[in-house]
Amino acid sequence: VAERALIAVFEELLEPRGDRLVRGPGDDASVVRSRPVAVTSIDAVADGTHFRLETHSPADVGHKALATALSDLAAMGAEAGEAHVALALPPGFGTPAARELVAAMESLAERCGVTIAGGDVITAQALAVTVCVTGWADDPAALTGRDGARPGDLVGVTGELGGSGAGLLLLEDGGGGGAGEAAASGAGAGTAAPAAAALVERHRRPQPRLAAGAALARAGVTAMIDISDGLVADAAHVAARSGCRLEIELAHLPLAEGVAEVAAAHGRDPVELGATAGDDYELLFTAPPDARPAVEAAAAGAGARVTWLGRAERGAGVVLRDAEGGTLDARGYEHQ
Amino acid sequence: VAERALIAVFEELLEPRGDRLVRGPGDDASVVRSRPVAVTSIDAVADGTHFRLETHSPADVGHKALATALSDLAAMGAEAGEAHVALALPPGFGTPAARELVAAMESLAERCGVTIAGGDVITAQALAVTVCVTGWADDPAALTGRDGARPGDLVGVTGELGGSGAGLLLLEDGGGGGAGEAAASGAGAGTAAPAAAALVERHRRPQPRLAAGAALARAGVTAMIDISDGLVADAAHVAARSGCRLEIELAHLPLAEGVAEVAAAHGRDPVELGATAGDDYELLFTAPPDARPAVEAAAAGAGARVTWLGRAERGAGVVLRDAEGGTLDARGYEHQ
Repeated sequence: VAERALIAVFEELLEPRGDRLVRGPGDDASVVRSRPVAVTSIDAVADGTHFRLETHSPADVGHKALATALSDLAAMGAEAGEAHVALALPPGFGTPAARELVAAMESLAERCGVTIAGGDVITAQALAVTVCVTGWADDPAALTGRDGARPGDLVGVTGELGGSGAGLLLLEDGGGGGAGEAAASGAGAGTAAPAAAALVERHRRPQPRLAAGAALARAGVTAMIDISDGLVADAAHVAARSGCRLEIELAHLPLAEGVAEVAAAHGRDPVELGATAGDDYELLFTAPPDARPAVEAAAAGAGARVTWLGRAERGAGVVLRDAEGGTLDARGYEHQ
Repeated sequence: VAERALIAVFEELLEPRGDRLVRGPGDDASVVRSRPVAVTSIDAVADGTHFRLETHSPADVGHKALATALSDLAAMGAEAGEAHVALALPPGFGTPAARELVAAMESLAERCGVTIAGGDVITAQALAVTVCVTGWADDPAALTGRDGARPGDLVGVTGELGGSGAGLLLLEDGGGGGAGEAAASGAGAGTAAPAAAALVERHRRPQPRLAAGAALARAGVTAMIDISDGLVADAAHVAARSGCRLEIELAHLPLAEGVAEVAAAHGRDPVELGATAGDDYELLFTAPPDARPAVEAAAAGAGARVTWLGRAERGAGVVLRDAEGGTLDARGYEHQ
């Protein structure tokens, strides 16, 4: 019955967006006017696996849970629509923390034009947040899957890589104190404080690339995936589903500022960190060479930088090339 | 990567149904051709809160998780469509158990015409299953919410009550051994073995009343809810959302066979058990008196019995009447 009281608290926080919602929280199910094609993804994050409450505030957790789900819609090029949220709260997790978590989720939903249309609250041993998001399109052909890469296509990526992984290393340095504020100062890691803070923020508050994903899908990319498992692992998913090989030039990796310093301070190769650390939630995609100008213009219009990493070829798997043109075993680079 | 291997196992088990699915598991999101109105509910169940692995098999858990989510679509009168499933598996939960859980879910999905279109698998401290289901309708007016009860409406319920609660009492008697088989024998509870087994089955394998819900919505019921929290608590939700009072004659409660004996053996009033024990997943609804023949015919056509329990009146809350016509305080009857 505490769960019911919490649901009432959440209902006060949540606002509908757009004109699709007919019934929101408070009935057995939400009711939404649809568009012709529904695009849906479910994602769960749990304490100890995807975050630790020692280094992530309840707001960080709420943001991350919705952001990672929305990132899947970005990777399809869908317009984000509604989210349904299941909160599993441990006994000691009070109403203020739960409200903070949901408020951060609602704040991201507002920025993304998303309506949190329903939810469930249960008691469980550890904090977990499951988010099911639905996006919309007018035609399945307007969406981009993982399976459309063809030999000869260029391989590109939005934004910068390695930032989230470097931020996680900084958080782990910080121990538990102050949810990583000590780490964010960059002390001892040889990283300037502003860059360190940006890396930690990157890890705690990933941004789904919804505008870039929609623009890239319209511009004619042939396959797309969001980088959650790490560049190499996610490239392997595209290669497997598309039935081709992706070749990536490691020298081209767009490393985020400060990644090199954090990697050095931890005895890691910065390129390896950028190629394997997950949770950047940038978009990896393929496009025919003649779509290159349109892709670059589309990304720029959505505020995203594009870096070209390599090429799709006949074959299977992922091949990594170093600066001398030698090849590396991609499996050694796969994230856990 | 164990998670990824499990996902591959699940993908082999899952079949698409109908012609809506364009992309199923294996991409960033599922893609489904929609109908004009989407009806969505998310529900989570966790070990220790909604079931115990001592008394529920992995198959029971998978069935229950999907059944309780689908029951919300039944309560709206929607046609069930797709399910997206997030599994949080504890470290010791092996592939055979996970496969058993998903296979039971797929079996129920098949019987209900539902496609399990996507999912997520994570590691967590305890088993939890979150299911987000989407149903479809052609018009919001074809759906029934909790808010349409009007003074003068009759109050009805499908099927039988108290069975799941009695089954749970029997399972608790049985301790852990044999996942409740000892309990199911009815030994010591004064309940005939076949009736006891049916009560335990009722608790472990609730059935969503999808056909009945759709038929009742078409027949003109004004409000509807599925009985998950217990008759009195769920009637209170309808009363609150509809802005009226629901009066229920306790003598009319359709108790399942064996409930009286199990209640007696546990020192419980059988009517109180039937009015408050949750998890029966029958449908409670209201309908204008002149719709009564149509409602009864619709339910019969869907294989469901209807029992008329009372009437909606001006006012608020739930009033319970005993056989002598006296009133009881409904709050004393609320679950937990």
